[in-house]
Amino acid sequence: MKTLVRSLNHSSRAMAKSKFEYVRQFETDDTCLRNCYIVVRLDGRNFHKFSEKHNFAKPNDNRALGLMTRSAQSVMEELEDVVIAYGQSDEFSFVFKRTSTWFKRRASKLMTHVASQFSSSYVFYWKEYFAEQPLLYPPGFDGRVVLYPSNRNLRDYLSWRQADCHVNNLYNTSFWTLIQKGGLTTIQAEERLKGTLAADKNEILFSDFDINYNNEPMLLRKGTTLIWEKRDEAVTKMVKLPNAEEQKEITVTRSRKRVCPHHCDIIGDQFWEEHPDILERDDC
Amino acid sequence: MKTLVRSLNHSSRAMAKSKFEYVRQFETDDTCLRNCYIVVRLDGRNFHKFSEKHNFAKPNDNRALGLMTRSAQSVMEELEDVVIAYGQSDEFSFVFKRTSTWFKRRASKLMTHVASQFSSSYVFYWKEYFAEQPLLYPPGFDGRVVLYPSNRNLRDYLSWRQADCHVNNLYNTSFWTLIQKGGLTTIQAEERLKGTLAADKNEILFSDFDINYNNEPMLLRKGTTLIWEKRDEAVTKMVKLPNAEEQKEITVTRSRKRVCPHHCDIIGDQFWEEHPDILERDDC
Amino acid sequence: MKTLVRSLNHSSRAMAKSKFEYVRQFETDDTCLRNCYIVVRLDGRNFHKFSEKHNFAKPNDNRALGLMTRSAQSVMEELEDVVIAYGQSDEFSFVFKRTSTWFKRRASKLMTHVASQFSSSYVFYWKEYFAEQPLLYPPGFDGRVVLYPSNRNLRDYLSWRQADCHVNNLYNTSFWTLIQKGGLTTIQAEERLKGTLAADKNEILFSDFDINYNNEPMLLRKGTTLIWEKRDEAVTKMVKLPNAEEQKEITVTRSRKRVCPHHCDIIGDQFWEEHPDILERDDC
Amino acid sequence: MKTLVRSLNHSSRAMAKSKFEYVRQFETDDTCLRNCYIVVRLDGRNFHKFSEKHNFAKPNDNRALGLMTRSAQSVMEELEDVVIAYGQSDEFSFVFKRTSTWFKRRASKLMTHVASQFSSSYVFYWKEYFAEQPLLYPPGFDGRVVLYPSNRNLRDYLSWRQADCHVNNLYNTSFWTLIQKGGLTTIQAEERLKGTLAADKNEILFSDFDINYNNEPMLLRKGTTLIWEKRDEAVTKMVKLPNAEEQKEITVTRSRKRVCPHHCDIIGDQFWEEHPDILERDDC
Repeated sequence: MKTLVRSLNHSSRAMAKSKFEYVRQFETDDTCLRNCYIVVRLDGRNFHKFSEKHNFAKPNDNRALGLMTRSAQSVMEELEDVVIAYGQSDEFSFVFKRTSTWFKRRASKLMTHVASQFSSSYVFYWKEYFAEQPLLYPPGFDGRVVLYPSNRNLRDYLSWRQADCHVNNLYNTSFWTLIQKGGLTTIQAEERLKGTLAADKNEILFSDFDINYNNEPMLLRKGTTLIWEKRDEAVTKMVKLPNAEEQKEITVTRSRKRVCPHHCDIIGDQFWEEHPDILERDDC
Repeated sequence: MKTLVRSLNHSSRAMAKSKFEYVRQFETDDTCLRNCYIVVRLDGRNFHKFSEKHNFAKPNDNRALGLMTRSAQSVMEELEDVVIAYGQSDEFSFVFKRTSTWFKRRASKLMTHVASQFSSSYVFYWKEYFAEQPLLYPPGFDGRVVLYPSNRNLRDYLSWRQADCHVNNLYNTSFWTLIQKGGLTTIQAEERLKGTLAADKNEILFSDFDINYNNEPMLLRKGTTLIWEKRDEAVTKMVKLPNAEEQKEITVTRSRKRVCPHHCDIIGDQFWEEHPDILERDDC
Repeated sequence: MKTLVRSLNHSSRAMAKSKFEYVRQFETDDTCLRNCYIVVRLDGRNFHKFSEKHNFAKPNDNRALGLMTRSAQSVMEELEDVVIAYGQSDEFSFVFKRTSTWFKRRASKLMTHVASQFSSSYVFYWKEYFAEQPLLYPPGFDGRVVLYPSNRNLRDYLSWRQADCHVNNLYNTSFWTLIQKGGLTTIQAEERLKGTLAADKNEILFSDFDINYNNEPMLLRKGTTLIWEKRDEAVTKMVKLPNAEEQKEITVTRSRKRVCPHHCDIIGDQFWEEHPDILERDDC
Repeated sequence: MKTLVRSLNHSSRAMAKSKFEYVRQFETDDTCLRNCYIVVRLDGRNFHKFSEKHNFAKPNDNRALGLMTRSAQSVMEELEDVVIAYGQSDEFSFVFKRTSTWFKRRASKLMTHVASQFSSSYVFYWKEYFAEQPLLYPPGFDGRVVLYPSNRNLRDYLSWRQADCHVNNLYNTSFWTLIQKGGLTTIQAEERLKGTLAADKNEILFSDFDINYNNEPMLLRKGTTLIWEKRDEAVTKMVKLPNAEEQKEITVTRSRKRVCPHHCDIIGDQFWEEHPDILERDDC
């Protein structure tokens, strides 16, 4: 919160201040290369312990996933150059458009602002998702920045995270089903799954527990993708009629950009063909 | 929250995942140069608006300053390699010791974790400081990393921030006194202070309003310095007496390291002579 | 020139050495972002003085330009991942292909090796171009690395350098013509050209000196572009005839990749359409 | 060699040029952290082959070492902020003073200029050292930049290189003595030295070949350290006598800074105590 101080030139203290100001020269420039997508990925710190202390349901807690998505929305609404975000488990990735000049593309500013906004939102919206469960201590996230020069690279990044979601969720679903429905201990469940392929786990779920993994909720199998979409909204307005003292309430339809969640496959082409505006062209 | 997945080598999905894994090669190494102090400074985003919306007292709001300090303490308790932190207004600087290997000295991890922990703490502890004033939306902070190779450079950095605190606080105190006690408008107050030196402002406060600026609270004039200090603490323990069924309550004195606030001058040598363990030696 | 030393583990000196080896940790990673073109540009240091001391012809010295090109060829033959190089005046740019893994894409290694190879070649080949003019002292070049994520960006970089060549050469040609043929002093020539547009300079050359700038050599107007081309080469071989003691000399045609110079426009599309293999596709 | 072109604002070509000029924004800032020593180390590329092609004597070629030192001197005379340089074998390290602002401390400029000046000097001075041996092709060097924040770190870096010199030279001396005087093949010599400690190699040299390693030339055992020293020089001048037409030749003693080679130990304190001006103080 910088105060506009216009009158300091000659005061001795201001001179004292200027004597120290050389330390600013130690700051380094960390501008992100132009014409690349800027990805900021956040990961929860010690969320294993955090999820236990706050009684997260296993293998997935819908309240926790909802809160992650709510916090990510808060980030996108604050930083409008984020064109797509993808989250699963306790991680979320935010993609700034190639041509973004937000914070002059300074990596440190971009990632700290995202980490900060996400974290304050996580605590702020906690009670909307965890009504009965008080928040015991403030959680932490860490982040990083990665640049991707082409649409192919960016899509492969997002595919990598969604494939990771699939792999982890299939394992976790099998693991906790063996424990919760099969009565195994955690060590026994781990032993049972050792060396199994995806097909084996599907088979265990189906044969032993009558669970068709493909019927599990998309939210859990595909994670959450957030994009900006134009939605028509009905807005109620009071209008003053011409030649009249009275006002009348009318309903107007407005098109507004909003952050909307999707729980679909983003590895294949369909999602990208349906939303051609997310990515900019490579040949620019 | 990484799950230990040991059994994926041959599954087709895992192969799909490994096909995308090349995107990790786009991550860059941002390890901080060894044997330098690592400073992470956070600044509030749009705190001018934030302070107005939340009715901060002018020129200083003790609740807000208390909450900043509480959040900074939370950061230090989480990241023990922070040897000193200094805050004023809506900014806080955290200094990692020269030899820190926290996060393998990766700049992005260090600054995002600090930004995240600070922000979640700010919301978490809000109600302890703003009992009557609800938090209306989650605030944001941005951050940066700066390296300082020598003790002299580091002390000059902290001096720069404390000199900035003085300059801003003297201006703000004069400005708001002219308005609140002198009945000036903001434009008139600005006009009155234009071109004035520190001595002039001191004179205005003293002659017109009977305020001796040097008697203003140290918290406001000097900001807040946080360091680790060993303090003796009385701890009550239940002890089982030998040859007896009963327990007896006894009080034990324990020495414990705690984060302690100071509101003193840190530009001169006295503070550093009194706390010789904060800085490491230059000749290492 | 590292010697393979396999036997040092326990010697006291080796231990002394290992005591110091921590200093390697101060090296930083400067790997270039993947999937970007890596451009290394060299510029002559103090070539104004160098050209005067070595009696370079004005405005252009064909010997000097030839030597620059010869040195650049030497760089390309040594660093095969350079797909195109462009030079004019005392500068040369080298473009590594997007997918190059030369030196593990370490920027410092790439630019120093280019600068070194170019400079040693410049001295080595000097006498081939400056037969009568001895080299008086070793010249210096400095360099930099710039990354370009897309074909468009890379072509715009090369266009920028070629446009710079044009602007400088038109000015220099006009300037030195006014002096050498028009008898003006340098100050008068500078005065005469002040504020003139390209069209004005063309007009001066044509009206006053009967010079059609567009007939000036392409080498001077367009600079030098070096690319790899497959050329058929006639090679003479001695072949031993079957059932015979004698050998016979035969001529074989071989296709070989060589570095070839061009002095054409590279701003428009034609050059790139004629050489479609220089650039890789954007959508990878 | 930039021409001062003042008159381009409105020409169409200049506009074309300005259309491309956005590509400059892709350049990144690589300013070296202030108050740190900047070390540029060069290494010969493929010098194993280079030394064989040019018939370097084994294990050490004094002509080659002399040429390395001559080239390093050329670098120091060109870049005066280099306060000390150390070389051995085919490598040379150049140390810029902490407070250097050469090239605005831009790492790429510093290392490419050093690499360039060294390489052109190597070819330029070749014939002074290799009278009979023509240079067959232009050699290459690569380089890197490393920063050291404290005097201790910098001295440990130089100690590391000198310990490396010792280890390599003792091995090479033993290896080539076994071959040249002992008649072993290279494989036999390698086998003989496998697992030996420094003491063992000293013993082999002494017992079998009557060589006291400590009597080997300092140049080979300690490498070459270059520093600036004030030396008195006798300069001959022609002076015009007062009230006379004649001139008289007189000899004047002048103190001049020159780059001087040393072949002594730089690991211990003595060298540094004898040359207290090389390093700046840590506490600045």
